[in-house]
Amino acid sequence: MSHPHPELSDPPAMPEGGLRIVALGGLGEIGRNMTVYEYGGRLLVVDCGVLFPETEQPGVDLILPDFEYIRDRLDDIEAVVLTHGHEDHIGAVPYLLRERRDIPLIGSKLTLALLEAKLTEHRIKPVTDVVAEGERRAFGPFDCEFFAVNHSIPDALALAVRTPAGLVLHTGDFKMDQLPLDGRLTDLPGFARLGSEGIDLLLSDSTNAEVPGFVTSERNIGPVVDEVFRTAQERLIVACFASHVHRVQQVLDAAVANGRKVCFVGRSMVRNMGVARELGYLNVPEDVMVDQKELDDIPGDRLVLVCTGSQGEPMSALSRMANRDHSIRITDRDTVMLASSLIPGNENAVNRVINGLTRWGARVVHKGNALVHVSGHASAGELLYVLNVTKPGNFMPIHGEWRHLRAHAKLAALTGVPDDNIVIAEDGVVVDLVDGHAEIVGAVPAGYVYVDGLSVGEVTETSLKDRRILGEEGFVSIVVGIDSTSGKLVAGPEVHARGAGIVNEDFDEVIERIEDVLAGAAGDAVNDLHQINQLIRRTVGKWVSDNYRRRPMIIPVVVEV
Amino acid sequence: MSHPHPELSDPPAMPEGGLRIVALGGLGEIGRNMTVYEYGGRLLVVDCGVLFPETEQPGVDLILPDFEYIRDRLDDIEAVVLTHGHEDHIGAVPYLLRERRDIPLIGSKLTLALLEAKLTEHRIKPVTDVVAEGERRAFGPFDCEFFAVNHSIPDALALAVRTPAGLVLHTGDFKMDQLPLDGRLTDLPGFARLGSEGIDLLLSDSTNAEVPGFVTSERNIGPVVDEVFRTAQERLIVACFASHVHRVQQVLDAAVANGRKVCFVGRSMVRNMGVARELGYLNVPEDVMVDQKELDDIPGDRLVLVCTGSQGEPMSALSRMANRDHSIRITDRDTVMLASSLIPGNENAVNRVINGLTRWGARVVHKGNALVHVSGHASAGELLYVLNVTKPGNFMPIHGEWRHLRAHAKLAALTGVPDDNIVIAEDGVVVDLVDGHAEIVGAVPAGYVYVDGLSVGEVTETSLKDRRILGEEGFVSIVVGIDSTSGKLVAGPEVHARGAGIVNEDFDEVIERIEDVLAGAAGDAVNDLHQINQLIRRTVGKWVSDNYRRRPMIIPVVVEV
Repeated sequence: MSHPHPELSDPPAMPEGGLRIVALGGLGEIGRNMTVYEYGGRLLVVDCGVLFPETEQPGVDLILPDFEYIRDRLDDIEAVVLTHGHEDHIGAVPYLLRERRDIPLIGSKLTLALLEAKLTEHRIKPVTDVVAEGERRAFGPFDCEFFAVNHSIPDALALAVRTPAGLVLHTGDFKMDQLPLDGRLTDLPGFARLGSEGIDLLLSDSTNAEVPGFVTSERNIGPVVDEVFRTAQERLIVACFASHVHRVQQVLDAAVANGRKVCFVGRSMVRNMGVARELGYLNVPEDVMVDQKELDDIPGDRLVLVCTGSQGEPMSALSRMANRDHSIRITDRDTVMLASSLIPGNENAVNRVINGLTRWGARVVHKGNALVHVSGHASAGELLYVLNVTKPGNFMPIHGEWRHLRAHAKLAALTGVPDDNIVIAEDGVVVDLVDGHAEIVGAVPAGYVYVDGLSVGEVTETSLKDRRILGEEGFVSIVVGIDSTSGKLVAGPEVHARGAGIVNEDFDEVIERIEDVLAGAAGDAVNDLHQINQLIRRTVGKWVSDNYRRRPMIIPVVVEV
Repeated sequence: MSHPHPELSDPPAMPEGGLRIVALGGLGEIGRNMTVYEYGGRLLVVDCGVLFPETEQPGVDLILPDFEYIRDRLDDIEAVVLTHGHEDHIGAVPYLLRERRDIPLIGSKLTLALLEAKLTEHRIKPVTDVVAEGERRAFGPFDCEFFAVNHSIPDALALAVRTPAGLVLHTGDFKMDQLPLDGRLTDLPGFARLGSEGIDLLLSDSTNAEVPGFVTSERNIGPVVDEVFRTAQERLIVACFASHVHRVQQVLDAAVANGRKVCFVGRSMVRNMGVARELGYLNVPEDVMVDQKELDDIPGDRLVLVCTGSQGEPMSALSRMANRDHSIRITDRDTVMLASSLIPGNENAVNRVINGLTRWGARVVHKGNALVHVSGHASAGELLYVLNVTKPGNFMPIHGEWRHLRAHAKLAALTGVPDDNIVIAEDGVVVDLVDGHAEIVGAVPAGYVYVDGLSVGEVTETSLKDRRILGEEGFVSIVVGIDSTSGKLVAGPEVHARGAGIVNEDFDEVIERIEDVLAGAAGDAVNDLHQINQLIRRTVGKWVSDNYRRRPMIIPVVVEV
C-alpha cells in the first residue's frame, strides 16, 4: 500500500481560509491513527499511533505512519493532541519526537502519564501540557475545546477544533456507556451544544459501525466476573489488556469480595497499573496486592493472577502456561478468564492458548462463552445518536477499515447528511474544508513505515517480499569459483539449501548439471559474471521445479579467483 | 507435535477378543480425519483426510496423517470406509493408495464419485464399492451397517461396526436438520435401535460441542438468498464451498425464480457440480447455465456467478476481483454474497476480500450480516439427542480440537455416561475396547506429514523452522575462498543479504571485520574449515545484533581453493 488512491494526484495549494485534513493513518485500517490539520500554514496533529503487523509483514515489530508529508514542516506543528492512551493513538510519538524533540504533547492526565512512562523507556523527556474536559485552549490558529468521552481506557477526550474555516468535531475513540463505572459519560450535551452552534465537519470513530444496536455496559461484566471468582476451584488467572483500568478494577473488587490476593504479571500490566493507581484511576485496597515472589506462599484458592497475553502472544506468560513452558503448571483445578476482545488476526493464536489450557483440564472462560468483555467502540445505535445530535454539515468516517468506513457513511446518509457532503477517504487522502464544504482534492504518500529491531524504515516492501518467498519456499544457494580469465570452474559448485525441503543427497545431480553447463559456457568463452550467474540460476531453478514442483529463492554466488 | 502424549508409551499387544481404535488424525485438530480399527489382526480404516496448513506451516500444501502405524500392515486392511466427500475425510486417499493400490474404498454414491474424480487427477483407478444407508456389509471380521446422516454435503453416512468385541457407532460428520432440503434425515430411529441393542462405544462429531442449542435449517437460508437476488442492482457473485450441493441448489433455484443465468467459476466448483448433476444430487433446470465465455453477452442484472474463494484464498477469482486484478471489475452496482462459513485461521484473508470489495463500493452480504450460512455440524443440543438415544456404554469424542473434545465429553457426562467410560484421546492414542470397557493403553506416532509440491514427507519440522526464521528475519550469507594449505583468504568475502533489511552499503564494515578475523586466524594457523565457518558466523552474527538488533540466519560458505 504505497499510494492508496492511484487516481489522485498531488493536492493543489491550500485555498485561502480553508482547513486541510490529511489522515496519515487510521483510514482503511484499524491502527496508527494520525490526522494532520492545517490552517494558515500551521499544523495541528491529532494522535500518533502504531499499527501492529499481520502475517503479511513477517518479522516486523511495529508499523508507523509515514511522516514524510510533514517532515519538512516539523516547525509548523503547533501541538500533537493525544485523545487517549492506547498504543494505536500514542505508540508512534517516540518516533515523531526523534525528528523534533520539543513538539508540545497535549492530552489528559492519564494519557500523558502513560505516554511519559513509555517515553522514559525511549529516554525522551517530552514537553507536555495536561488538558481536561471542559477546557478550551488555543494552539496557534487552532482553538481547541475538549470533551469527555467514554472508552475502554479512562480519561479519553474528544476535541472540537475551531478555525475561521469552521468548526470540526473529532471524536477520537469512544462509546456511550450510560452507566460507566467511573461516572464519566460521553459528553452528549456538549456535542449537542456544538451541533446548535453548527458543526461544519464531524470525524467519528467507525470501528463498530457494522454492529447493530448498543454496546452493553462495562458494569454488566461485574456479576459474571464475580460468578467466576465464586466458582473457581483453585487458582484463578485473568488475562486482559494492560490499559483496561476499569476491567482490572472489577477484578480487584471481585478479589476483595472473595478473599483472594492479586498479583500483576507482565511488564506493561505492572507499569500501567502503577501509573493508574498513582493518579487515582485505579482504586487498590490495602493488603490486596502480592508480589510474584510471594506466590508460592499463597494457596491457589486465595489467589488471582492478572496478566497480559489475552491475544495469544507467543512469548506471554499465558501462552507459556498453555504450553507447560512456565513455572505455573496448569491443572484441571485452574480457571483461566480471557477478559478481553479478540483482535482480528489473533484468532489462531488465542485458539491455540484456549486449546492448550483446555488440554491440561483448565476451565477457560472467554468472550465466546461468557459476558467477560464488552467493546470500547460505539455500535451503530450509538453512532446514530451522535450524528443526530451534532447534525454535521459534512461527515468523514475515521478509525476503520473500508467496511467500517462505508457502513458509517451509510449511517450518516440515513440521518440526513447529503451524499455529496460525506467524504470517505483513506490514508494520505487530502480533504479540504472550504466555504463549509469538505471534499477530496488529492493525495500524498502515506505508506507503511516498518520498525524492525533498531531500524525504522530500512525494512522495505522488497525485504518483506524476500521474507515471504524465503518463508514459504526457503532457498538454494550455489557457490562457484571461476578463473577470471578462462571462465573455467576452479572451485565448487557448493550447493546449500535451507527450508527448501531438499536433502543433501540430491545435490550431486544438480552439481553435475551445473558443471556441464559451466563447461559448455567456458567452451563458448562466456566469462561475464552476470551471464554465468544467470546460467546457474536457470539450471538450478529448472531442476528444482522439475523434481520438486517448488520455487525456492535461487542464489548463485560467483567468485572470481 | 511428534508424540502428543509424551507420558504414554508403546501400546501392549492386542488382548484376545479386543477391539483397538487408533485415530491417526482428527483428534486435537479439525482435519485429516482417519481412524484405524483393529480386530483379530485385521484392520478397518474409517476416513482418510487432509488437514490444511496454518501460518505455522509456511509453504506447505497439505498435511497428511502419518501412515507409519499401518505401513507394514497394508495387506491387513480390509477396507477404507469414507463417511462423506469432504477433503478432510477423503483428501489423503490418493497418498494411501500410493502405498497399496487395491485397498477397497467403500462409500456412498456421491462420496465415491467425488473421490474418483479426484483420483483421476492423480491417475489412479481405484477399487470401489458403493454402499447406501440401510445396508449391512462385512469387511473381514468387521460387520458394518450404514446409516443416513445429514451434513453440509449430500449422501453422508454413519457406520456401526460390529465385532465380537462389541458394537461401535461412528457418526462421521453430521447434524440433525429436521427439515433438510433433500428430505434425507439423520437416522435417529436407526441410532435408537442400536441403542436398544446396546452400543459399547460411541464416537461422535465434536466440532460444535461448545455451541449451545441447535443448528438452523439449511432451508432458512432460501428466503435470504432470494431477498439478495431481488435487491441486487446488477451483477451478483456468490462464493461458497465447491462441495455444498444444497447451497448451490438454493442459488440455482433463486436464479431461475429471478430470471438470472448461472455461471460456475473455478475448477473444483465446475468439477464437483458436474458430478453432482450427473448423479442427480443437483437439479439444474434447462437453459439456466452459461459458459464463462458467454459472460460478456449477458447484462449484469441477468447474471449470477457461483465461484469458490469464500475463504479468501489469494489466487481465487474472488480475491483477484477484490484487488482489481481480474477481468471482472467490481463496481458500486455489484453485489457479492459469501454463502459459507469462515474457517478459523482464514479471518484475515476473508476480511481482506470484504474490505477490497467494499472499497470499490460493492455490497457484500456475508454470515456476519445475513443468514447466508448455517453450520454442517451438530450443536450441543443435537449432540445431547444422540447421546440420549444411543445410551453408549463408552464414549469417545472425535473430530475436534481439545476445547471441542472436552466440551463434548462434558455433554456425555451430563447424559449419564460414567466419567471412567469417557475416553478423551488425541491423535495416535491407542484405545482398546475389552470386555465392554474402553481405555487408553498407549500411543503410537501420529505426527504431521507435509505435502509440498511433489514431495511427501520430505519437508520436515526442521525445514519449517528454517522457513520461519528466514521468513521473519531473512539471511546473510558470506562466501570466502581460503587457500587450502595456508588458510589465507584468497577470494571474497562476498556478503549477500535477503529479507534482512540490511542495505549493501553497510556491508563494507562487516567485510573488514571478517578480513581482520580471518587474518588473525591464518596467523594462528587455523585452517580447519569448521572453525573458520564458526568464526565468520560469530563475527557476522554479533555485527548484525549490535547494529540492527536482529537475528537473521547467518550462512558462511567457505570454499577451499
